[in-house]
Amino acid sequence: MKINYTKNVEKWGLFEFSAEGRIDGNPFTERAITARFESRSECRTVSGFYDGEGVYKVRFMPSFEEVYKFTVEGSFSYSGYCGEFTVLPPSENNHGQVRVHNKFHFCYADGTPYYPIGTTCYVWELQSDELIEKTLESLKNSPFNKIRFCIFPKHYDYNFGEPRSYPYDGTPMDGSIITKDNFWNYNAHSEGNRWDFERFCPKHFQHIEYCISELQKLNIEADIILFHPYDRWGFSDMNSQQNALYLKYVTARFSAYRNVWWSLANEYDLIKNKKPDDWDEYAKIITECDPYGHLTSIHNCVDFYDHKKPWITHCSIQRSPECTGDWRNIYGKPVVIDEMAYEGDLQYGWGNISARELVRRFWEAACRGGYGGHGETYLDENDVIWWSHGGVLKGESPSRIAFLKKVLEDTPAGGLRVKAMSWDEICAVPENERIAVETGYHLFYYNIMRPSFRDIYLDNDNTYCAEVIDTWNMTIENAGHFKGRFRIALPRREFMAVRVRKL
Amino acid sequence: MKINYTKNVEKWGLFEFSAEGRIDGNPFTERAITARFESRSECRTVSGFYDGEGVYKVRFMPSFEEVYKFTVEGSFSYSGYCGEFTVLPPSENNHGQVRVHNKFHFCYADGTPYYPIGTTCYVWELQSDELIEKTLESLKNSPFNKIRFCIFPKHYDYNFGEPRSYPYDGTPMDGSIITKDNFWNYNAHSEGNRWDFERFCPKHFQHIEYCISELQKLNIEADIILFHPYDRWGFSDMNSQQNALYLKYVTARFSAYRNVWWSLANEYDLIKNKKPDDWDEYAKIITECDPYGHLTSIHNCVDFYDHKKPWITHCSIQRSPECTGDWRNIYGKPVVIDEMAYEGDLQYGWGNISARELVRRFWEAACRGGYGGHGETYLDENDVIWWSHGGVLKGESPSRIAFLKKVLEDTPAGGLRVKAMSWDEICAVPENERIAVETGYHLFYYNIMRPSFRDIYLDNDNTYCAEVIDTWNMTIENAGHFKGRFRIALPRREFMAVRVRKL
Repeated sequence: MKINYTKNVEKWGLFEFSAEGRIDGNPFTERAITARFESRSECRTVSGFYDGEGVYKVRFMPSFEEVYKFTVEGSFSYSGYCGEFTVLPPSENNHGQVRVHNKFHFCYADGTPYYPIGTTCYVWELQSDELIEKTLESLKNSPFNKIRFCIFPKHYDYNFGEPRSYPYDGTPMDGSIITKDNFWNYNAHSEGNRWDFERFCPKHFQHIEYCISELQKLNIEADIILFHPYDRWGFSDMNSQQNALYLKYVTARFSAYRNVWWSLANEYDLIKNKKPDDWDEYAKIITECDPYGHLTSIHNCVDFYDHKKPWITHCSIQRSPECTGDWRNIYGKPVVIDEMAYEGDLQYGWGNISARELVRRFWEAACRGGYGGHGETYLDENDVIWWSHGGVLKGESPSRIAFLKKVLEDTPAGGLRVKAMSWDEICAVPENERIAVETGYHLFYYNIMRPSFRDIYLDNDNTYCAEVIDTWNMTIENAGHFKGRFRIALPRREFMAVRVRKL
Repeated sequence: MKINYTKNVEKWGLFEFSAEGRIDGNPFTERAITARFESRSECRTVSGFYDGEGVYKVRFMPSFEEVYKFTVEGSFSYSGYCGEFTVLPPSENNHGQVRVHNKFHFCYADGTPYYPIGTTCYVWELQSDELIEKTLESLKNSPFNKIRFCIFPKHYDYNFGEPRSYPYDGTPMDGSIITKDNFWNYNAHSEGNRWDFERFCPKHFQHIEYCISELQKLNIEADIILFHPYDRWGFSDMNSQQNALYLKYVTARFSAYRNVWWSLANEYDLIKNKKPDDWDEYAKIITECDPYGHLTSIHNCVDFYDHKKPWITHCSIQRSPECTGDWRNIYGKPVVIDEMAYEGDLQYGWGNISARELVRRFWEAACRGGYGGHGETYLDENDVIWWSHGGVLKGESPSRIAFLKKVLEDTPAGGLRVKAMSWDEICAVPENERIAVETGYHLFYYNIMRPSFRDIYLDNDNTYCAEVIDTWNMTIENAGHFKGRFRIALPRREFMAVRVRKL
């Protein structure tokens, strides 16, 4: 029997063991493969998976630059395996997985700050090779460091095509009967789908792994949506046993990718056959099967999920960001507003705001101590819309979002919080009190207001450098040095900010 | 003794009787003058007032085209008077006083609909003759049919000057000590004012009456603010006896002007020496002394007044208009949002929104079944700012507000209400169910959204004419005739509306 394994892997890289194994019966349900990894500092047992064509795999993400020994066993094979490999230092852009940091913010495993600037392309990875390459090229030239997408295909307005592959063995209903006018009639209950929910289609997942790896090369987090309601194939309508099998398979395959986040659902409140508490059961599977504790959340349509639940690492919210402070207070976790409406011109209100409004919402979220999310929904003659399919970015917001990202990267580490808020000014400072005092960093944001000037009150003991930021036109101008109470002239335009730092 | 009275007056015009009277003692507090008016259909007793220089006056607004007899008596004189006059038909632009109509809306006494399109110029009438003429000229060329202003002078940022006259005999504190930096230190309690609160200065009121008359010629309602907190002269700090005397004097003088509305206070919640219930006492005086039941309200800063109180005819609100529907439901009265922030560039958030945002708020208010209010606060090198001083309108909103006014005037009578609201569309129809059904009038508003098209669902039994309205660019384009379910193409811009009417 052939076996194969990575001899040298970098810290937070992906180790993979593969071996041919038994193909009698159903390898997905009747066979198991587990591996135990041991180094001086780390010891973990992880589950593997059947990858089709007789091959079983186990993956592992080491967290230490040490020598690891491993043993592989399970019913997949009549014999066990063992071996060892050396973990090398991480390469330059490998900072490990993203974690919650400073209660409301994030950083990579190596301590590098991570300011999420996400976008959404629901099924970009299920499009043609050509379109996927185009999307990756767009992402490379974008500010986005997180992308939300689904494992299951999407059935929705502007999304009537079949995916490049399906997650299960079988055949779909006849999609050619779907039109723009009748698509709301087709949903998970529609007749005509023939799937074996006990036999995965490894090619579907192998392809998604390719996409996760490509994102990793671009330092982009893969915020993977495990369930969603836009479905004519029946994948949103599986029973809890089928869902459990699916979640175990996905976590076994994807967990060792350091850039994976788990989004249990998109618009969970639109998924009719699952009650709010059912998600606890699915979350339990994920937290048990994912050895690394990847960031985990669940995304709402109308009603917020109870983000206080312990398995939720951060809020993943759909809503305009004005109440970010309330959500921080209620949930005590990072607030990521993945959907704040999209730049575009669709007929739907969630998909036709201006770039100015979307950028305003990004600043509003950031200055209130949260993080906004991007999406783009411009009508396209071929129905290739960024929000679902990826492709080319046409909007005016990404360059402004890149500008905001730079402003965030230039903050003292640890993220922002609101220091003081009058109804016509948000004043953000570093989350960490000590850093806030040391740096004297203040970011004042004026939103749609157009003041000719503002008076700022700081202490008389320090000298501060003030800069006027035009968040739309992407300029930063030095306004001079000040002490105590001082007046900053502003250009009577919307979307201005003032940044103040100790000299 | 000389007497004088109007021989012929038009319906809803102002009849005035004047006579010389006793000048011993204090004519303002020790003498009374009342008159009884009687025609076939109407019989009223009204109070008059001392107008200085030995002259007492009584005013009356007749509501019927009949012959009126009157008798005048009181301690003002050792003898009584009587006489008669004939009431002629109202002249072309005289529709009588404005009243609440159809629960949430307004009309004139003759039934002509009145859609309030107000502006605020707090002390325009206390400026120089030249500036007052300029303001009247601006109003003449504007859409505004209501203006809010104060009887007392105003002390506030950009408002440090002395008024042209004071309401009382006496002398003010030395205003030359006031600067932009110290003005917050001066308020009603400041030393140095010497007023006799029992002796009015008739010239002050005569001048305001000139201004009310000039507004009346322009068909503009005078929404008179009786108390306000922006004060260094002590007028906001008088005791309740002094306030009662003031209210009786004002109602005796102004009530017969058909275009008068009473605003008990501007930002009542900032007036420290009056509790919410104290206003009931003042309202009682007004409702007792004003024989005609002029529209009466009270305006908030932060906390809403309880507009459910029976003396309040309509809500006068400061707030962005998104919750207009809630206020209609709570208070069951017309909702006039007199302050929604002003077009301008002041340092204050209430005074620096864009014309686009102000016009958006006007449409939002109108489509939700309420009425917005205008104000303009552009910095001026001479501190002549429309919001306080009047003068010249510099902004881009008035022409757009005029356009909205025309759209409102083109609605079937009775005002608008929300028929249906999804989160990305407001659909307004006539308030009156019968008129709504008969006319098939629908006004859809899309706010900051930029749909490429919208699908509209109406019945198959009627043919509808649809028009696309660009509320900012002020265009109305015929979109064709439709039945049942139809699609309207839209230009992917913000601030669009669609108007649909039965053919």
